[in-house]
Amino acid sequence: MNYQRILENIGQQVQREFGKGKVADYIPALARVPPKKFGITVATVEGDEFRFGDSEEPFSIQSISKVFALSLALKLEGAKLWTRVGREPSGNPYNSLVQLEKERGIPRNPFINAGALVTTDTVVSYDQNAGRTMLEYVRHLSQNPAVQYDEEVAMSEKEYGHLNFAMSYFLKSHGNLRCNVEDVLDVYFHQCALAMSCTDTARAFLHLANRGTSPISGEKLVPARRAKRINAVMLTCGLYDAVGNFAYRVGIPAKSGVGGGIVGVIPGVLSICVWSPELDAIGNSRVGAKVLELFTTKTKLSVF
Amino acid sequence: MNYQRILENIGQQVQREFGKGKVADYIPALARVPPKKFGITVATVEGDEFRFGDSEEPFSIQSISKVFALSLALKLEGAKLWTRVGREPSGNPYNSLVQLEKERGIPRNPFINAGALVTTDTVVSYDQNAGRTMLEYVRHLSQNPAVQYDEEVAMSEKEYGHLNFAMSYFLKSHGNLRCNVEDVLDVYFHQCALAMSCTDTARAFLHLANRGTSPISGEKLVPARRAKRINAVMLTCGLYDAVGNFAYRVGIPAKSGVGGGIVGVIPGVLSICVWSPELDAIGNSRVGAKVLELFTTKTKLSVF
Amino acid sequence: MNYQRILENIGQQVQREFGKGKVADYIPALARVPPKKFGITVATVEGDEFRFGDSEEPFSIQSISKVFALSLALKLEGAKLWTRVGREPSGNPYNSLVQLEKERGIPRNPFINAGALVTTDTVVSYDQNAGRTMLEYVRHLSQNPAVQYDEEVAMSEKEYGHLNFAMSYFLKSHGNLRCNVEDVLDVYFHQCALAMSCTDTARAFLHLANRGTSPISGEKLVPARRAKRINAVMLTCGLYDAVGNFAYRVGIPAKSGVGGGIVGVIPGVLSICVWSPELDAIGNSRVGAKVLELFTTKTKLSVF
Amino acid sequence: MNYQRILENIGQQVQREFGKGKVADYIPALARVPPKKFGITVATVEGDEFRFGDSEEPFSIQSISKVFALSLALKLEGAKLWTRVGREPSGNPYNSLVQLEKERGIPRNPFINAGALVTTDTVVSYDQNAGRTMLEYVRHLSQNPAVQYDEEVAMSEKEYGHLNFAMSYFLKSHGNLRCNVEDVLDVYFHQCALAMSCTDTARAFLHLANRGTSPISGEKLVPARRAKRINAVMLTCGLYDAVGNFAYRVGIPAKSGVGGGIVGVIPGVLSICVWSPELDAIGNSRVGAKVLELFTTKTKLSVF
Repeated sequence: MNYQRILENIGQQVQREFGKGKVADYIPALARVPPKKFGITVATVEGDEFRFGDSEEPFSIQSISKVFALSLALKLEGAKLWTRVGREPSGNPYNSLVQLEKERGIPRNPFINAGALVTTDTVVSYDQNAGRTMLEYVRHLSQNPAVQYDEEVAMSEKEYGHLNFAMSYFLKSHGNLRCNVEDVLDVYFHQCALAMSCTDTARAFLHLANRGTSPISGEKLVPARRAKRINAVMLTCGLYDAVGNFAYRVGIPAKSGVGGGIVGVIPGVLSICVWSPELDAIGNSRVGAKVLELFTTKTKLSVF
Repeated sequence: MNYQRILENIGQQVQREFGKGKVADYIPALARVPPKKFGITVATVEGDEFRFGDSEEPFSIQSISKVFALSLALKLEGAKLWTRVGREPSGNPYNSLVQLEKERGIPRNPFINAGALVTTDTVVSYDQNAGRTMLEYVRHLSQNPAVQYDEEVAMSEKEYGHLNFAMSYFLKSHGNLRCNVEDVLDVYFHQCALAMSCTDTARAFLHLANRGTSPISGEKLVPARRAKRINAVMLTCGLYDAVGNFAYRVGIPAKSGVGGGIVGVIPGVLSICVWSPELDAIGNSRVGAKVLELFTTKTKLSVF
Repeated sequence: MNYQRILENIGQQVQREFGKGKVADYIPALARVPPKKFGITVATVEGDEFRFGDSEEPFSIQSISKVFALSLALKLEGAKLWTRVGREPSGNPYNSLVQLEKERGIPRNPFINAGALVTTDTVVSYDQNAGRTMLEYVRHLSQNPAVQYDEEVAMSEKEYGHLNFAMSYFLKSHGNLRCNVEDVLDVYFHQCALAMSCTDTARAFLHLANRGTSPISGEKLVPARRAKRINAVMLTCGLYDAVGNFAYRVGIPAKSGVGGGIVGVIPGVLSICVWSPELDAIGNSRVGAKVLELFTTKTKLSVF
Repeated sequence: MNYQRILENIGQQVQREFGKGKVADYIPALARVPPKKFGITVATVEGDEFRFGDSEEPFSIQSISKVFALSLALKLEGAKLWTRVGREPSGNPYNSLVQLEKERGIPRNPFINAGALVTTDTVVSYDQNAGRTMLEYVRHLSQNPAVQYDEEVAMSEKEYGHLNFAMSYFLKSHGNLRCNVEDVLDVYFHQCALAMSCTDTARAFLHLANRGTSPISGEKLVPARRAKRINAVMLTCGLYDAVGNFAYRVGIPAKSGVGGGIVGVIPGVLSICVWSPELDAIGNSRVGAKVLELFTTKTKLSVF
């Protein structure tokens, strides 16, 4: 398939979509990202890459990092992790405390904030240098030793992070946080502040399209079974409370972040990352979702 | 792949799982179904079929019928249907009114009861003989003119159906029911009471594994795009509030019913229907879910 | 105290309050009530009465009738009634189903719709002519044999009463409705449609200010203990989800209706009924509440 | 009325009620309070006092302190306070976050934890020495300069206070906390840890039974209007989610604490404080509520 031409077609087609969403503004460092930034990278299991626009410019991956935290936590803790966090779609905004109260401190899934606090806490509970470990893990997955935390974003997340403090203390009050709130949040705010390009991100997710093995290095990064399962959690829980709509329109496992990135996985075929900072009301990249919809329509690739 | 041997292996393997669930008992006609009934049918897009156990015995398909109602409603109403019903997982029990109140009478998806009342109402609003039309549609899809409504079950559903009456009047109070409550419920209770075997059901869903076209007759039953979308809705909403867990363990679009049936679709490959009346706490067939988990594990087939 | 002068002062003072609320419009018969209708009647335990404005014109008492239904149900069923309905403020709108689902069909109190359906059902379960019995009871309490059901309002309530149908079926589905839905609703819609004047209503509530005994006839209408308790339920549950605010501003047991009536009880002293059809956002008479606030401020009468 | 004899009768009568409740055990300092401790003090507006049992032994007043915080906050902030906290019964447990989320950080009333955090924050925002000010205020009201914070309890509250941290950060995230979380909680945990006897407490509330004026010193402690209003808030919000039941059974404004104290006010007549540490499921003193019920029954005093 001529992915390059498809990306260019799509790039053309979505021009009229810009200007309709709203850049995340809960912290200054995100609020000043130029709204028209727009990049795409496709990485195939054959090892090819196709890029469009600002594909090499690092952006704040935000909640996309929740997949890395889940992957590390599953590696460290195994299936026991699921006693502390569910894997059902929440049907509620990602930062809601309602469900958490009703379900006595067990977050609905690892991709809402409370759930990611639990996976991060798990990593921290095994590893005093969890922040460094997480960074090395992401550098390894993306084959890019230059991936960095954006310290300004991390500080800003902390400064405006009262709700995450509230959620952490709430988890603590339910006995579902092993470590110190401050320690967990330090790692959490940093992972949200990971600065990665579309290419970094597409590469970091490529093994999930290839049964857990890097098609480049041949290294088994996660067992095939776990890759499949992480994809399943992405499909049912990866786009906040728009998972059903996204599955309907796009039809692939994916994870979004309020930085405007969305990364998708087409098992057996490819990974794809789009970045466009304008968000819809739910917090997903408007243009990003449109790009992925056009991509699966044009390529006729989808899991359904 | 030797599906027959796989089915037999699985049949063996799940023997120890019987006796742990609970047959639906909210109506007498369901309560007296022998709990050890157990059948499987696999239908492939090549036109082969593989059967195990009580695969030819009709059972009450119950909520599986919601897929037929959605398919008919989409055919009649097109995308406008989605203004009256969402397509997000509910994160709540299938018969909950809470969400419906919060979301002002727009059911979360067509596979919870309230949502199916809307799709059925849509069909009834186009067709005075909706009950007959539905039956003919299902007979056609399953290639079995002998498929029938179980009138005893239908009457029983009505007698004990106060909650469905409540939901219908609630939809009506929000202006989201076009027809008369009694008329809609008559069709609704009948479709829930469709008696179909595993083979009937697997056949009726086979086109969804084949881009909408019957691999037997070559007839285009639904457009490819709609088949893909119905699969997406099944994956994100088809197993009540256990969709995430089912996607994780099994990884295919599927729809369950409290009669103990679960039908799954592996796009491009096959459809499969299992029947075992013992339910788990959420209302899905315990053995049925286990069979599908073993099937996707052994065949390495899944959408992820 | 010169109640007459106080009423006239208040009547003057609230002139500027008219035109700010909204007459109930969910049924045509209520929607066409002239918004400036305004009456007050005070009835004292000494047997005096003081009237202002349209105090003799019958209006639709609506939810005020829930106090009569409670009184009758307590007489028939005694304390057992409280196993089927609570007596806590709901903290939710009067027609909400959310709480009813969470609390498994036990309405929070007898003054929200669901609770009144339970008290009415109780009356119907004891008495085949509950509609007639209720009417006679109210005529007796108000010493006015001319009190009538407004049949047009009753029919209209039924025609637009889908939500009450929904609630009744919901109660039924939880086993908390003894009688037939249609029978209960027929009585319910009629009692809501009772047409009574301010004077009728103030008289009908006067015994609650006098330990259960009519100061006119000397008849013990309810035991002193029950009068006190009905007052307690009115204070904590009588003004929908504005009870706290009303207690704070006014400080007396009271019950409102969407017809624009509010009746209050000052134990040991008097009963008072105001009618002004313009409602606030919560469904209480705007001017009515203001009148009662001014009345307790000027007279320095309140239970606190 | 012979209050002394009434208290003694009641003391006799409730003997069989001991042993049925459960002492608060969320912090060690409360868990080890002997469950059979039992004291009562009645203070009348004539200046008489009647005591029974352990009436002079200080106990942890816990949530009773929320009335002091409200009184101080109203004094400092006036009616503007009600833009930051409601005055409606919550219908939910006192430590629930659900409602707070739904209502965007405005606590339902000042007697649930979140609401008391807002009143305490208000006091702290006016006064750098809020902890000391609060203590002096309570000493003045109770005419007992020996009233103290129990530092062990305060420390313990902090150590186990994750939920209060969560709530404070949640309020902060909604912009409804002016001061620093740590500073507000320090004062909050201390006021909960006030150690006062039944006599101290009854005296501290006596002005609320006397239109705001101390009948002993003649000092106007709060304006009459505010006293009446604080009583109203106590009646509708003072007993967690049992206010309706308490109004029904007892019928007076009151405030309870998980230390086992309940203080009640009978306007124009007296204040009464009971202490018995065994709690019911909702968190109110079991014996305490029974004592107050018997007291209002025997004396025929109640606001209804």
